Amino acid sequence: MKIELAENYGFCFGVKRAIKIAEENKNSSTYGPLIHNNKEIARLEEDFKVGLTDDHKSFKSGDKAIVRTHGIPKDELAELKENRVDVVDATCPYVTKPQQICQDMSEEGYDIIIFGDEAHPEIKGVKSYATHGARVVTCPKDLEDLKLKDKIALVAQTTRKVEDYMEVANYLIPRYKEVRVFNTICNATFENQEAVRKISTQADVMIIIGGKNSSNTKQLFSISHDNCPDSYHIEDENDLDYSWFINKEFCGISAGASTPDWIIQNVVNSIQEQIK
Amino acid sequence: MKIELAENYGFCFGVKRAIKIAEENKNSSTYGPLIHNNKEIARLEEDFKVGLTDDHKSFKSGDKAIVRTHGIPKDELAELKENRVDVVDATCPYVTKPQQICQDMSEEGYDIIIFGDEAHPEIKGVKSYATHGARVVTCPKDLEDLKLKDKIALVAQTTRKVEDYMEVANYLIPRYKEVRVFNTICNATFENQEAVRKISTQADVMIIIGGKNSSNTKQLFSISHDNCPDSYHIEDENDLDYSWFINKEFCGISAGASTPDWIIQNVVNSIQEQIK
Repeated sequence: MKIELAENYGFCFGVKRAIKIAEENKNSSTYGPLIHNNKEIARLEEDFKVGLTDDHKSFKSGDKAIVRTHGIPKDELAELKENRVDVVDATCPYVTKPQQICQDMSEEGYDIIIFGDEAHPEIKGVKSYATHGARVVTCPKDLEDLKLKDKIALVAQTTRKVEDYMEVANYLIPRYKEVRVFNTICNATFENQEAVRKISTQADVMIIIGGKNSSNTKQLFSISHDNCPDSYHIEDENDLDYSWFINKEFCGISAGASTPDWIIQNVVNSIQEQIK
Repeated sequence: MKIELAENYGFCFGVKRAIKIAEENKNSSTYGPLIHNNKEIARLEEDFKVGLTDDHKSFKSGDKAIVRTHGIPKDELAELKENRVDVVDATCPYVTKPQQICQDMSEEGYDIIIFGDEAHPEIKGVKSYATHGARVVTCPKDLEDLKLKDKIALVAQTTRKVEDYMEVANYLIPRYKEVRVFNTICNATFENQEAVRKISTQADVMIIIGGKNSSNTKQLFSISHDNCPDSYHIEDENDLDYSWFINKEFCGISAGASTPDWIIQNVVNSIQEQIK
């Protein structure tokens, strides 16, 4: 069986940057998981003494707090700074962008629609910058009963599928006078999705590696599954089931933006050993 | 054979307004045809002495010039005013809107894309307000080789089909950082198109009445033809061919925004007399 990695996969610019920031700030704590990969977080704790707390109020004056790649709500950031916590911002610049757009568009009087997952930390953060509020939607149906202004600003969670974003845009445009569509899906997401789209049409089994709570990994899995029904989302080599590879000829592999290379390599090695 | 008019058809707000303006300004001239209907223009000339000239330079100081519903280029309007021509503006307010958007978006540094027909007077006028230029396109293919800024403003000719406009928007949005989509297709266009869409799925012969150079009539015909292959675009009752109605049970009728009721009534009467 041939094993091949997608042309683009794994760590994106924002995640690499955040890990570098964490490694340079030993003996600190992140507020919330730095990235959606528990194993990489465990490595940072073990090798660099970078801890993790889920409560921003636990930081005291002089403590060092690393802001996660997904960003945090505006009021919590302000509170940390008020309390003289030493804030080290590892928010991905691609996430800072929709935060800024929400703030600017609120000031300009637009109704703001955010396409994404309301429960995801990135969206909690982005939404908090819409000073007059925003609606978070996942599909056109969520828009049906809304009464909106004639000026709408639309932003997307950075890790979403562009096709799904377009469905929301296509619902709004004919119904409102102005829809200002910001393409805030990040380049790494575009590239990883495009690559998984390509390889999954050729492979007869696909392995997608990434945290179960990783939004971008879930999107990669969804695209892969559309083209290759034998697609599996795993966190690491321990989740592999070798029956998946029986009578298969081509195994494609991709990984989410928060999946470190060492986990991907472990998965490839494990598959190779088993199919010998 | 049943004969039925579409739920919405014919004269729109802008055309009614322009005709009223013309009727109130006897012994004047329009610069270019006031609306795209030669018979109505002939009636205005005969009953109200409203003439027609195709050269704005022919207006002298003190002359009264009526600006057509489709608007005119910005520099020509300025020239008329400089020459102290008494300008009576019958530009449809739905056309003034995209003119204003082009001007504002140029000033804000957006690249401007106009979806429409470059040769149509409305678009010549609208484009002239884009002080740093604009590209006029009719389909996504026209955009393929363009290198645009990351901030794009998109406007549409008021009489276009929304589905075609969406194709252009859908090409741009995934490729650029911000696409500001202005829905400048006018309400009358929406309503007339929706009504012809409905009736043409039920009728077995469709008659669409309007000037051969009328953009909105051409769009109505296109929608009608998609649903009912036996669709015919006529200017008035003289274009009717009675073989069209042989063995037909349901004749649907619609008319463009510049088609006066008296022409529609003549058509209905002629069909009724012939099929007796």
